[in-house]
Order: sequence, then C-alpha cells, then structure tokens
Amino acid sequence: MTLPAPAEPGMRLEEVDTPALILDLDAFETNLKRLADAVGRRVRVRAHAKTHKCPEIGKRQIAAGAVGVCCQKVSEAEAMVEGGIADVLVTNEIVGARKLERLAALAKRARIGVCVDNADNVRALQAAAQGAGATIETYIELEVGMRRCGVAPGEPAVALTKAITACSNLRFMGIHAYHGRAQHIRSAEERRVVIQNASLLVKNTKAMLLHAGLPCPIVTGAGSGTFMFEVELGAWDEIQPGSYVFMDWDYARNEWAPPMPRFEHSLFVLATVMSRPNPALAVVDAGLKAASVDSGMPGVWERPGLSYTHASDEHGWVEIGPGAAPPGLGDKLLLVPGHCDPTVNLYDWYVCVRGGVVEALWPITARGAVL
Amino acid sequence: MTLPAPAEPGMRLEEVDTPALILDLDAFETNLKRLADAVGRRVRVRAHAKTHKCPEIGKRQIAAGAVGVCCQKVSEAEAMVEGGIADVLVTNEIVGARKLERLAALAKRARIGVCVDNADNVRALQAAAQGAGATIETYIELEVGMRRCGVAPGEPAVALTKAITACSNLRFMGIHAYHGRAQHIRSAEERRVVIQNASLLVKNTKAMLLHAGLPCPIVTGAGSGTFMFEVELGAWDEIQPGSYVFMDWDYARNEWAPPMPRFEHSLFVLATVMSRPNPALAVVDAGLKAASVDSGMPGVWERPGLSYTHASDEHGWVEIGPGAAPPGLGDKLLLVPGHCDPTVNLYDWYVCVRGGVVEALWPITARGAVL
Repeated sequence: MTLPAPAEPGMRLEEVDTPALILDLDAFETNLKRLADAVGRRVRVRAHAKTHKCPEIGKRQIAAGAVGVCCQKVSEAEAMVEGGIADVLVTNEIVGARKLERLAALAKRARIGVCVDNADNVRALQAAAQGAGATIETYIELEVGMRRCGVAPGEPAVALTKAITACSNLRFMGIHAYHGRAQHIRSAEERRVVIQNASLLVKNTKAMLLHAGLPCPIVTGAGSGTFMFEVELGAWDEIQPGSYVFMDWDYARNEWAPPMPRFEHSLFVLATVMSRPNPALAVVDAGLKAASVDSGMPGVWERPGLSYTHASDEHGWVEIGPGAAPPGLGDKLLLVPGHCDPTVNLYDWYVCVRGGVVEALWPITARGAVL
Repeated sequence: MTLPAPAEPGMRLEEVDTPALILDLDAFETNLKRLADAVGRRVRVRAHAKTHKCPEIGKRQIAAGAVGVCCQKVSEAEAMVEGGIADVLVTNEIVGARKLERLAALAKRARIGVCVDNADNVRALQAAAQGAGATIETYIELEVGMRRCGVAPGEPAVALTKAITACSNLRFMGIHAYHGRAQHIRSAEERRVVIQNASLLVKNTKAMLLHAGLPCPIVTGAGSGTFMFEVELGAWDEIQPGSYVFMDWDYARNEWAPPMPRFEHSLFVLATVMSRPNPALAVVDAGLKAASVDSGMPGVWERPGLSYTHASDEHGWVEIGPGAAPPGLGDKLLLVPGHCDPTVNLYDWYVCVRGGVVEALWPITARGAVL
C-alpha cells in the first residue's frame, strides 16, 4: 500500500497536510555552500547520508564538492547507488554472511568502502568479496574516544591492517576515526581539546603503520559538531559531516564559534493545532511518531513564548507562555526536530519549500533501511 | 524503491537478517486469548491499531472477539479499511479540511467513528460529511485526567453534544474517555484509584446528558495498563487496549496483579553483535532507528547479565556483567523494545516466528501513516 503524500508541488506551505517533513531549500543550499566555503580545498568532504537517506540530497552534496557519501548500513548504501551515487563508504562494521554478500555485490556496481575492527570480520569480508569477484576498499575503524566500535590504536591497529593487506580482494584505504561523543559537547573549546587528543592517536597509529611498511592513504572521520577542528589539526584527509545540512535543535545548543561555521535550520516538522483544551495549551498532531525525542523535544520555530514540552505517540503539548500569541485551532506550526537523523527516518518524503511554496517532493528512499 | 525484507518463510530465526522486528506467534495468540478470557462478555473490545498498524493483526483481534479497531490518524484508518477491516473508530480529533474530506470519504466505505472536543471542529466535520453524503459516528472526547485533548466534564460536554446532535450527517455515539497517563503508573492500586476518579466524571457527564435528553449509547476508552478497572467500575461499554498484544519492556515494569491479566512479550527486535571492542561490551546493530528509546532502553531477552544501556542512531551498547555468558561476534540477541508503538512504526514487516521458524511476513501497511 502507498501512503498519501502530504503535499504537491505548487501548494503553499499552509496547505501542506500534517505532520509533514519540510525542507527549506534556501537554508539547505546555504548550508551546502557554508560547508564548502569553510573547508575549501584543505580536505575532501564525504557527506554522511545516514542523516538524510535521500539520493537527491546526496547528489546535491556531491555537486557542492563532496567526493561521495557515507552510509551506516548496506541497505542504505544500496539505496544511494540505486539513486545514482557512485562512491559510498560504509562507516561501520558489516557482520553476517547475507549482508556481506550484498555489500560485495554492490562493490561490482559502485566504488564501495567499509570499516573493520576485527580480524574474523576481515576474513568474512574477503570471502564475500572473492565470491563476488569484487574489490572492497577497507578501512580500519580506530577507537579514538567514542567507546563504541573500533580497534585500539597502536599495535592492534597495525595487526588488523596486516590482516587486510593479506587479502586479495580488499584494498586497504586507511583509517576511519570518528569521535561521535565529541559532536555534542557544548563548549567549542572542549570539543577542540577532545579532537586534538583523537588526532594524536590517529597520527601515532598512522606513523606505526608507515613504519611497518603499510601506507595509509586516507584518514577519514569527523562530524558536524567538530569537523573544522579535524581540518585544522591536519590529521584527517576527509571529513564526514551529516547533520550540517539540516541543523537540528540539539546541535543548535552547541556553542558555535570560529572555526566552526554556524548552519541554518533547514529541516522542520509542520504540525497542526488539533485541540485547544485550555488557554495555556495547544495540542499538535505531531508526537513521537513525527519527531524523535531521544535528544530532547522539538523547538517551536519563530513563535516566541510557545514551547513544545511533552510528546505522546501522536500528540505534542505546546505550552503557551504569558503574553505569547496563542495559536488557534487548525493553525500550523513549524517545529525544529530535536534530532534530525531518527526524525527523517520516520518519513517517506521531504516536502521541499522555497519562499513559502512547495517546489518539489524528494523521496526518502533509504527510510527504514536498517539492514 | 522497495527495501529488502529481512527474512523469508521457512527460515530459522538465526538466519533472519538484522535488525528485524520479530513477532512470536505463540505469545501473540496467548495474549489475544488472555484478553478475551479476562474481559469475557462484560464489555466490547475495540483493539487499538495504533500499536500494530497492521490489518493482519487487526483481523486476528476481531476473530478473537473485538468489534473493530481504533486508530489515531485518518491515514491509519484508511490502511485498516484497505486491509479489510469494516469498523474503525478514530480515537482522536481530526482537524483540517483535507483530512476531514478523506475521513468522510472513508465513511462511505466502512463504519467510521471519530472524536471531537470543539464546536468549530463539529461544524467542519458536518460540512465534510455532508459534502460526501456520509454519516460519521461522533463521540465527545472527555477530559478525565490525561490533560491532553478533550472537553471538560459536565456542562461543556453537554453543550458540545448538543452541537453534534444538531448536525444531520453526524450520529452521536457517546463518550470517549481515555486516561493515558494512568496506563504506566506502576502501582496497580494507584491505577485503580485514578480510573475510579475518571469513572465518576464519566458517570456524572452521562447522567447530565441523559437529563438533557441526550442518550449516550457507548462509553469507550481504557488501555492495556488499566482496562480491567474500567471493566469492573461499570462505566465503560467498550475498551481499547493496544499494547497488550505485544507487552513492551516499559509495560513490564508495571505491577501486574488481579484483576489485570499479565501478558507475554511477543514483540522483539532481533539484533546482531557487530563489534566486541572489549570484554565487557558487545555492540549490536540496532540503535535508535531500530527501537524507540522514548520510554527507556530495550531489554535483553533471556540473556542474564547482559544489559542494553545506551543507543546511538545505528548502534546499541550491550554491557556484559560479571559472570554473564559473553556473546560472540555475529551472535544474535532478542531485544524487548522499551515502547512498542513507535518501534513498530520503524519497520515495514513483522517477521512472524513460531517454534524458531519464520511462518509468515506481515506487512505493516500503516507504518508512517501520520496524516
């Protein structure tokens, strides 16, 4: 069954059915340009598609200078290749024969990279690549403070790299070093210090690889909250920002100071006031299934005194502060999602708006691509 | 684009690709029977489809005695009618001309009910019903403690009912009285007291309606955490449990004591260990996009000493306690979602398993049906 779309091109924003995921094209394009201007030619940009899950956006990131995209899942990478993107790095470990077979098949259709942190996984990856007659670009994921996946810096990283270089169908490409925890540290200076520490681990491991006769062509990593620190520290060749295209409410809580450029909010959830049970409360039709609250409640856009304070599955509580202009029944509000990635993953379409008019609908083809 | 399905009928559970939403059919069928046995013929059951979003499940609830299903959204109701369900109550206010037109069109194809809490909305509903030549069954939503939508008990409820009965295309059906906040109060006795208070508001308003010459055929409401209190208090004619079919990890934290039957966990997220970075940690491939964490982290099923403690977008941290059997790379774990409704809304398929073998895949046709 196909669900109804919330809008058609040519509609005014006020006519869009709700809840709908709105992309403000002017702000989106500003963000593309702002990243390119900030980074210049100092490193390559490989934009993270886990945020947007949409080849239309990936292609625009590439047109703005990115060398390709990153994904977290094989099914996401498949959606990107299907959508016309020729260079995809899966910044994640892929475990399980079925997934590895699909990854290897994809590597026959596009340039595909993947990360490893375990020698058994290297052998399984090689077997799949060999089975498909494919070559897969392979990076070691280095643990630099995220405390999630990743091989330890130093000798363990060298040993794992040797396991890769012993494989006929894997091409060792370098180091994936991403410090996810650093992205949302509020103080810019603290973020810089954390990334500086990560850079020492990267430089040390890269030197050990070289000493072992293992050249490391690419160091890739970084996110929207820190990437200029990675650029300035000089240890990274490629950065992977994702959320910069949208700038969610949680990222807005960071301190944004040079060298980090500040991005514009381009992603919104349009919601309708569906009940006004009392003078201090408006209930909107967008709850947990319309905006992920894992990183806090959505912000209410350009409506001073209104606060989205609580969500249930299909409802949001918007409290009306003293002196605020109260929204009427049926009024529409723009919400800035607390966390863009899992919010996007709830929708099938971006309703792309410019100057208050719907210009296009872009399908979120990797929505739900968890495999 | 169609995403790959995680399984095929006949596969063993261990072969299912991950993350996948698993429905244990034996436990699911036990839950259907347990509800029917507990309620008997004392009230009607109208199961809530916002939880499962799947006509296959709705039809089995009806086969087990339910008179129909509830939905929260017009698009959900459309998916249920499309899937063969003939009697749907939208337990929510529907605001906006476009949605009301679709609701009225649906009322030409099936028995459709809806809730109102505002006289302007009653007039808009009547206009849409008249435009379609349809009759829509209309309930007042009564505020009984949820502090969300709903008309106040007493005179405001009577006035709103009069507005409904003045409309040629609306049939006044009664009162929707749902106390969502009560469902997750841990103490069974506290839940009983809260529902008892709600029942007084219901009875008082119903008496005032009768006194005003407005018969109230149906009082409907109640959820999986409280429904037996509504049954025993005698003010409700119909109950609307949803989560009982799945029993999520948050509901499991409730005190379950008579008269409430305890349900079985039937819904799981199957996840794969994708990294073992240190002896105390297993990283699984199921994060925020695979299990909603709004009501807490998932539980780890039948693996003593393992705890899912943190989620990022595509990763889950499973801590390995002292003495616990450590899962190996590639091992699969069953997770019990913290909150079933928004977790289901992330998936396209239920992988239905019986005795460790995939018996069927049921499409979640109302996945993402937020309009």
